[in-house]
Amino acid sequence: MHNPLRRGTVYGTLLNHHDALAALGAAVNEPPYKAPPKAPVLYIKPRNTWVAAGEAVVVPWGVDELEVGATLGLVIGRTACCVREAEALSFVAGYVIVNDVSVPHASYYRPSLRFKARDTFCPIGAFVTREAVGSPDALRIAVVVDGETVHRCSTAGLIRPVARLLAEVSEFMTLLPGDVLSVGVAAGAPRARAGQRVGITVEGLGTLDNPFVAEGRPA
Amino acid sequence: MHNPLRRGTVYGTLLNHHDALAALGAAVNEPPYKAPPKAPVLYIKPRNTWVAAGEAVVVPWGVDELEVGATLGLVIGRTACCVREAEALSFVAGYVIVNDVSVPHASYYRPSLRFKARDTFCPIGAFVTREAVGSPDALRIAVVVDGETVHRCSTAGLIRPVARLLAEVSEFMTLLPGDVLSVGVAAGAPRARAGQRVGITVEGLGTLDNPFVAEGRPA
Repeated sequence: MHNPLRRGTVYGTLLNHHDALAALGAAVNEPPYKAPPKAPVLYIKPRNTWVAAGEAVVVPWGVDELEVGATLGLVIGRTACCVREAEALSFVAGYVIVNDVSVPHASYYRPSLRFKARDTFCPIGAFVTREAVGSPDALRIAVVVDGETVHRCSTAGLIRPVARLLAEVSEFMTLLPGDVLSVGVAAGAPRARAGQRVGITVEGLGTLDNPFVAEGRPA
Repeated sequence: MHNPLRRGTVYGTLLNHHDALAALGAAVNEPPYKAPPKAPVLYIKPRNTWVAAGEAVVVPWGVDELEVGATLGLVIGRTACCVREAEALSFVAGYVIVNDVSVPHASYYRPSLRFKARDTFCPIGAFVTREAVGSPDALRIAVVVDGETVHRCSTAGLIRPVARLLAEVSEFMTLLPGDVLSVGVAAGAPRARAGQRVGITVEGLGTLDNPFVAEGRPA
């Protein structure tokens, strides 16, 4: 049985928005990859990155701004290994809003843990059941910084829509109950700095709101 | 308190052996990085990869051989954030043998989850306390395939010895009790195929032994 409070591994997906891939331009054809990705490109947000709604995201000492990665997370409800796209959604217990925070960086494809896995870099919102959300493939997403809407996107822009993404990932890696697979961040991710409040609204899931705070000067 | 049965995130470290970095030759100076790594390069072995001693490592359909990544894992005993090198070992509860299995691949630096995070790709041996092992910086490691020793190395070859590695990682990412940080695989990792038994012996930690088995043909 799925317990929405027990969290497994949290996966992020890179370059799964048409506009995010387009924004790379010719860089996708440079070494070492020399072509756009042929399969989902994944990375992991480990436990030290997880915070809840309302908890602080810490802007590391020496960093001016962080990128806000507003996205939808699929919460896996039962063991998903080699599932077919047509059945994939039945392996999803529900959804969460994920703020996949990064230190802004120029590198493309799979990024350094120094940019994506620092403490507090993954606020995760409240669990909402699959039934309550309905189809996950055209949910509007908005990012609000200090009350001002600074970015809008939608899960309609995914290269691999939710069911297909889950099916393709499960071909090479089993997803376990409590794992979270976030579907990818759109191009033009807004930035925020210490002292600001960042809210992410996803249609049907409410809002995930977190203050950004400055890290103390290292001893 | 540390419970050695509760496992957190399992991190691997790339290119932390002098010989492994040397084996890359001029490739480290090519795009996109254009220089050898200046900091520990980490990746994660998620839950779906974990198996115990004696359990099968599954060689994926269509893959002939897997790389055997014999290495030492540090089991974190208490929360480690910005620890100093001189104190770092006191954050280690003990050690485990880790077999960081990969699909052989030419790419360097941070690899695809398709190569390193497939189901069963991380056998982890029994927990041994820090006190029982003593200094972790010159432990002999041997890989035995079907009774024949095919590779020898030692933790004496680390670019960042154990305490320094842990200190540097904890500068940008908090390690939590139950997390495992493996220290890196030496150059010349041996390979094994389905039907073989792979044993890894680490001085003071005994042997981690796992059968490699073939994946069934996909439906």
